[in-house]
Amino acid sequence: MARVPVQPLTREAFRPYGDVVEIGDSRHDTINQGWAERYADMAKLDLLEEGGAPNVGIVRAKPRQFPLQVKLMERHPKSSQLFIPLVARPFLVLVAAPADQPQNIIAFKTMAGQGVNYGRGVWHHPLIALDQSTDFLVVDRHAKDENCDEVALAHLDLWVGEF
Amino acid sequence: MARVPVQPLTREAFRPYGDVVEIGDSRHDTINQGWAERYADMAKLDLLEEGGAPNVGIVRAKPRQFPLQVKLMERHPKSSQLFIPLVARPFLVLVAAPADQPQNIIAFKTMAGQGVNYGRGVWHHPLIALDQSTDFLVVDRHAKDENCDEVALAHLDLWVGEF
Repeated sequence: MARVPVQPLTREAFRPYGDVVEIGDSRHDTINQGWAERYADMAKLDLLEEGGAPNVGIVRAKPRQFPLQVKLMERHPKSSQLFIPLVARPFLVLVAAPADQPQNIIAFKTMAGQGVNYGRGVWHHPLIALDQSTDFLVVDRHAKDENCDEVALAHLDLWVGEF
Repeated sequence: MARVPVQPLTREAFRPYGDVVEIGDSRHDTINQGWAERYADMAKLDLLEEGGAPNVGIVRAKPRQFPLQVKLMERHPKSSQLFIPLVARPFLVLVAAPADQPQNIIAFKTMAGQGVNYGRGVWHHPLIALDQSTDFLVVDRHAKDENCDEVALAHLDLWVGEF
């Protein structure tokens, strides 16, 4: 049994895997006659390859139980994929770089208000909600062709949590 | 002084203006080995005209005071624009159809969990947060060309609220 350590999600630590979507210290402009601040260009959306189109959906994820065994990882070779909770709640993000083995996992715990945009080809675990069912807005690629690789990892006996 | 009535936001009532982004009774598929439900294709994203690209940002909107005078409306002739709160809170949506005069306003109050995607050319009021500062995820068109018409309406003495 191997344990995957969990670290706080920061832009710097997540850079090899994609974008952190958060206000944080992002650049911003005042809009709407002073009634709002706009934090623009939060994520590199990579959705148009081979006739892809941008797509918006909601995913309602059930809370996981911990410690959690990592049974699989997946990646989208043609596109990025963005998730941000529609309530201010943390969740867990497990990734491995595209050029790396999918079992070489880095785990992050988000802070309330953070989302992530997985870069093209980045290995990631399916959504891991904590404590309660959580709705996420998803921005990804709409197309009918195949765009998901999945690899089974249950035989490696990798575990995350508790925390 | 004219008063704009406010009605609850529903998909049916909002159809002439765009999409309501909400779980509601949307079709959905079970994904992630049974750990999540995916409600796909929530909005008709119309972002690619004339070299546009999809863009994701966050807008932090200050709460408005009511009754609120409608001083202007705006529209984006080349693209849709999607807003969904990152906390489960209602907000106010003022729209007029593209073929209509911008002062012929229909006002909607959202329910917690709802977002909107304004169709291309739909007149809309800048974000109207209620009670407290609210963060919205925005999905719109990234490009350097001009894509916003604004019309001043203060002379019409139109007011919304209280509620």
